[in-house]
Amino acid sequence: MIMESYSIGIDIGGTNTGFGLVDEKGNIIFNSSISTKSFDIVEDYLDEVINQILLLTEKCDDKSKIRGIGIGAPNGNYYKGTIEHAPNLNFEGIIYVKDYLEEKLRGKGYDLKVTLTNDANAAAIGEMIYGGAKGMKNFIMITLGTGVGSGIVVDGKVVYGNDGFAGEVGHTIVQPEGRMCGCGRKGCVEAYSSVTGLRKTALELLSNTKIDSSLREITQENIGGKAIYNAARSGDTLALKCFEITAKMLAIGMANAVAVTSPEKIFLFGGLIKSGNLLMKPLKKYFEESLFVVFQNKIDLEISHLDENKAAILGAAALTY
Amino acid sequence: MIMESYSIGIDIGGTNTGFGLVDEKGNIIFNSSISTKSFDIVEDYLDEVINQILLLTEKCDDKSKIRGIGIGAPNGNYYKGTIEHAPNLNFEGIIYVKDYLEEKLRGKGYDLKVTLTNDANAAAIGEMIYGGAKGMKNFIMITLGTGVGSGIVVDGKVVYGNDGFAGEVGHTIVQPEGRMCGCGRKGCVEAYSSVTGLRKTALELLSNTKIDSSLREITQENIGGKAIYNAARSGDTLALKCFEITAKMLAIGMANAVAVTSPEKIFLFGGLIKSGNLLMKPLKKYFEESLFVVFQNKIDLEISHLDENKAAILGAAALTY
Repeated sequence: MIMESYSIGIDIGGTNTGFGLVDEKGNIIFNSSISTKSFDIVEDYLDEVINQILLLTEKCDDKSKIRGIGIGAPNGNYYKGTIEHAPNLNFEGIIYVKDYLEEKLRGKGYDLKVTLTNDANAAAIGEMIYGGAKGMKNFIMITLGTGVGSGIVVDGKVVYGNDGFAGEVGHTIVQPEGRMCGCGRKGCVEAYSSVTGLRKTALELLSNTKIDSSLREITQENIGGKAIYNAARSGDTLALKCFEITAKMLAIGMANAVAVTSPEKIFLFGGLIKSGNLLMKPLKKYFEESLFVVFQNKIDLEISHLDENKAAILGAAALTY
Repeated sequence: MIMESYSIGIDIGGTNTGFGLVDEKGNIIFNSSISTKSFDIVEDYLDEVINQILLLTEKCDDKSKIRGIGIGAPNGNYYKGTIEHAPNLNFEGIIYVKDYLEEKLRGKGYDLKVTLTNDANAAAIGEMIYGGAKGMKNFIMITLGTGVGSGIVVDGKVVYGNDGFAGEVGHTIVQPEGRMCGCGRKGCVEAYSSVTGLRKTALELLSNTKIDSSLREITQENIGGKAIYNAARSGDTLALKCFEITAKMLAIGMANAVAVTSPEKIFLFGGLIKSGNLLMKPLKKYFEESLFVVFQNKIDLEISHLDENKAAILGAAALTY
């Protein structure tokens, strides 16, 4: 007899924390949400997280069917089950999320294992359990949002490395004397190929070149991902150049990661992907150009198969597998 | 009862092929060598390899103690047991080394498993079985010779990736508009941080700058690793700058590989390492500068513990574990 099982997936974000009860096929049976930023004291926040977990377990007909709890969190450390110095959270320092939750839940009679990792690793596992990477042994997941994250899968397992922080393709250097990155170094992929990087490229091109552009007609504050996208869609040369640069830097970072781990595919996920071929077309071109010869014409770039609105919860839930 | 075991390690090089019978502690009990380049027909060469293997098995008191045969070879593919398009061998195309040897040996009554990979992966496994990486789960081996090779170990296993060609840190791009690499792309680590790259840096600096240097007194053909090393040892500014550039480019490539796999240590091996602190001092400095903040001051750079003259045989022998 095959018994059905359910996972609890938790997506911790700076603004909200989402919860989902997920079946084996990746259907979210029940979900809820709380405001992360309304809490100033971390214990208060975690106690409310526990309340939500209990709420979810009640939605399950048989509590013994719950495999465990998976959490995707910024700066999440898989080995320690901690969130460490996350810049977007109200809670400073190191938060022992796994230990706190497991102990409190045990006190309430629930023996549930908590597994925690960062958002990009969770996205990679989500793709592997519920998405386009089912049964795939070697692939890379790239998440393109405010920052650039990545999850590296080797031999069917996410690479956490020695300290639990592996998979930072966004912070590989692709232009040694290049643009300042938020991390304090120069020329990281993230400095160019995040939404923030795209905006910086636009501002740089507007001030350093004389290229004609409709973006010159709007105020600097209003130049963001959406404005650049809209301009590029109308054929604006400068806006198109922004996507070219975003694509080129990301392509080099991805090709370098390929040289290290030789994946079958690279999946892409996140806000920037919505720009479609404006990004994907130059990305595919520069990616092939940047690949070492033995990897050329072998590695597909593919958009994540997971629904954007559910991916974070599914990624977290997939950690229980 | 613990039974002793022995491995046969074979190091295939363009000039010679070395053979060794190796015990569990990494002692080479018996060794031999044949000339690779004297063979034009691959079957003749492989038949002589078999003769040498049989010779080695006779040196072992009990043939059942032989674990298997490991081979380190240029362009070696672990999954297929092939050597593919190796530029330094007389034999073109794809050579099915594993299949050929296993079948012929079976015909002679020897049921020995052949495991083959490239030199750098073999060096990584050698370090793990016999050298400084015993029991280490996550590390990187960098080999600095005519080219730059690497072996990546994640979770106690060498990363071969989807196609068996993973671990090409030497062919990651660290300067997108940089120097032409032998692989046809621009700005690879290998274009700068191999012995060949060091020489190119010297020639470039000699022709593009006016820096005073004792290297200006010797002919271009005589400017090689040794001449640059000797000049640098005497405090020659230009020669020292060559090592700085070699170190900086390698440091960025290593830091990028760290961001992908988060190793505990990086081991270094090969001819260039003999330059000692001329390379290691700037390498350590630039490596720390190039590391993403979460990895800083955590990762030791260490010279391989294996004796240079035995390392290739030991690396190959370690493949049988």
